[in-house]
Amino acid sequence: MYVIGERINGMFEDVKAAIRGKNAEVIQDLAKRQMAAGASALDVNVGPSVADAQGGMLWLTEAIRGVSDAPLVIDTAKWEIMAAVVPQVPGEKILNSTKADPEIASQYIGLAVENGAGVIGLTIDADGVPGNVDKRVELGAQLITLAMEGGLELEKLFVDPIILPVNVAGKNPGHCMEAIAQLKLFADPPPHLVLGLSNVSQRCNNRKLINRTYLAMAMAQGLDAAIMDPFDTELMNTAITTDLLMERMIYCDSYLDAAKHA
Amino acid sequence: MYVIGERINGMFEDVKAAIRGKNAEVIQDLAKRQMAAGASALDVNVGPSVADAQGGMLWLTEAIRGVSDAPLVIDTAKWEIMAAVVPQVPGEKILNSTKADPEIASQYIGLAVENGAGVIGLTIDADGVPGNVDKRVELGAQLITLAMEGGLELEKLFVDPIILPVNVAGKNPGHCMEAIAQLKLFADPPPHLVLGLSNVSQRCNNRKLINRTYLAMAMAQGLDAAIMDPFDTELMNTAITTDLLMERMIYCDSYLDAAKHA
Repeated sequence: MYVIGERINGMFEDVKAAIRGKNAEVIQDLAKRQMAAGASALDVNVGPSVADAQGGMLWLTEAIRGVSDAPLVIDTAKWEIMAAVVPQVPGEKILNSTKADPEIASQYIGLAVENGAGVIGLTIDADGVPGNVDKRVELGAQLITLAMEGGLELEKLFVDPIILPVNVAGKNPGHCMEAIAQLKLFADPPPHLVLGLSNVSQRCNNRKLINRTYLAMAMAQGLDAAIMDPFDTELMNTAITTDLLMERMIYCDSYLDAAKHA
Repeated sequence: MYVIGERINGMFEDVKAAIRGKNAEVIQDLAKRQMAAGASALDVNVGPSVADAQGGMLWLTEAIRGVSDAPLVIDTAKWEIMAAVVPQVPGEKILNSTKADPEIASQYIGLAVENGAGVIGLTIDADGVPGNVDKRVELGAQLITLAMEGGLELEKLFVDPIILPVNVAGKNPGHCMEAIAQLKLFADPPPHLVLGLSNVSQRCNNRKLINRTYLAMAMAQGLDAAIMDPFDTELMNTAITTDLLMERMIYCDSYLDAAKHA
């Protein structure tokens, strides 16, 4: 399971304050602790309330690179920021994210290929989030085609079928699982399938229970990456146990610890 | 989710002692508490060490019927006991279990139809537990065909693809999930798919974590029944949350309690 740690995001108060106060230690501590908890990569998002979003993003990536060579998932909705920041970040990185419209996705894929980066592609276009499975699969297939045309290896494409909260979109978790199962069959090797996991439980009770239950369900259908909280021990243990049950690792009595320190 | 409570089984010390001492209150308490915890039916098994297994089974079912009209899952490997006990148990009941060999399965299906009962059919035959998906599906399909020929409605057939412990049979959890997904497509309405859940974690560490993680995974593939422990609150909460995420219920803030008292 490719765990993308979600904690370096300006929507969290500690990160917002650290960006404003240029307190690199807070960010570096979050980077180190997420990796120690078993994360494979780190999402980096300045959040909605930083005036200089581009400067904030560059400062965050520099702070992290001071202590970690983890893949960085550059998380911004603004193309200008993505285009300016990505060439300046050393090491592995993933663009988060592009929509599936061909003009937009080709631009992001081009930027990724130029910089040896990966891309998260959302199954959303000018019409918004699809209300059914077929359109999700169609847009996912479109992203796969655009990646192949643009020279991006499919191991570097992460298709995100977009999970919505179960309390307002009850059919959505099922739609995403079905889209994941189908999109895994579209290419060999297939692209990664990723979700912003915690969105499934927005404004719900029992958030952690819903998150970890849905993670196991979606992984059973082929999900192999998620933006999620590595500090949620039960969630991490669920991810590792799901990997075990899909025979991505061999059982030993200490399999949980073994996976976190692999 | 059709939860078959596993606790009235002579392999547990309290049940074994109750059978020997003819202490009906212990059994009745287990019956009532399992149903209160959200079970849909109760497995009944005298265990391996009771001298008069047939008398023990009859005593157990009579004790339970004193306090509950829950469906009783008559759990014995001996045909003679099944044939003798089933006609004497009032109310709903399910035969647990038959193998898939045609002569054997037809006998059990005939007994079930005569008594208005259901049947759990294992995807195992004279050759043992299949080592691959195809043979599991073939034996499951054979059970479906035999049920249709024998006049058993498929809503009363529970196909069990047989889960083995992950520590000795790493491919098995994946095989069972794939078999479940395929067998769901064989008829409309499909048969139920059931597992003896705790077997997946026999002699493993983190048993409860493995059980509940696999339950969510298998339910995502179409499992809709399990023999399991209703007193394991996290397991029950996982089952209910999986039902929520498959849109078998609508979200409300108290969905966990609502499901247990439905």
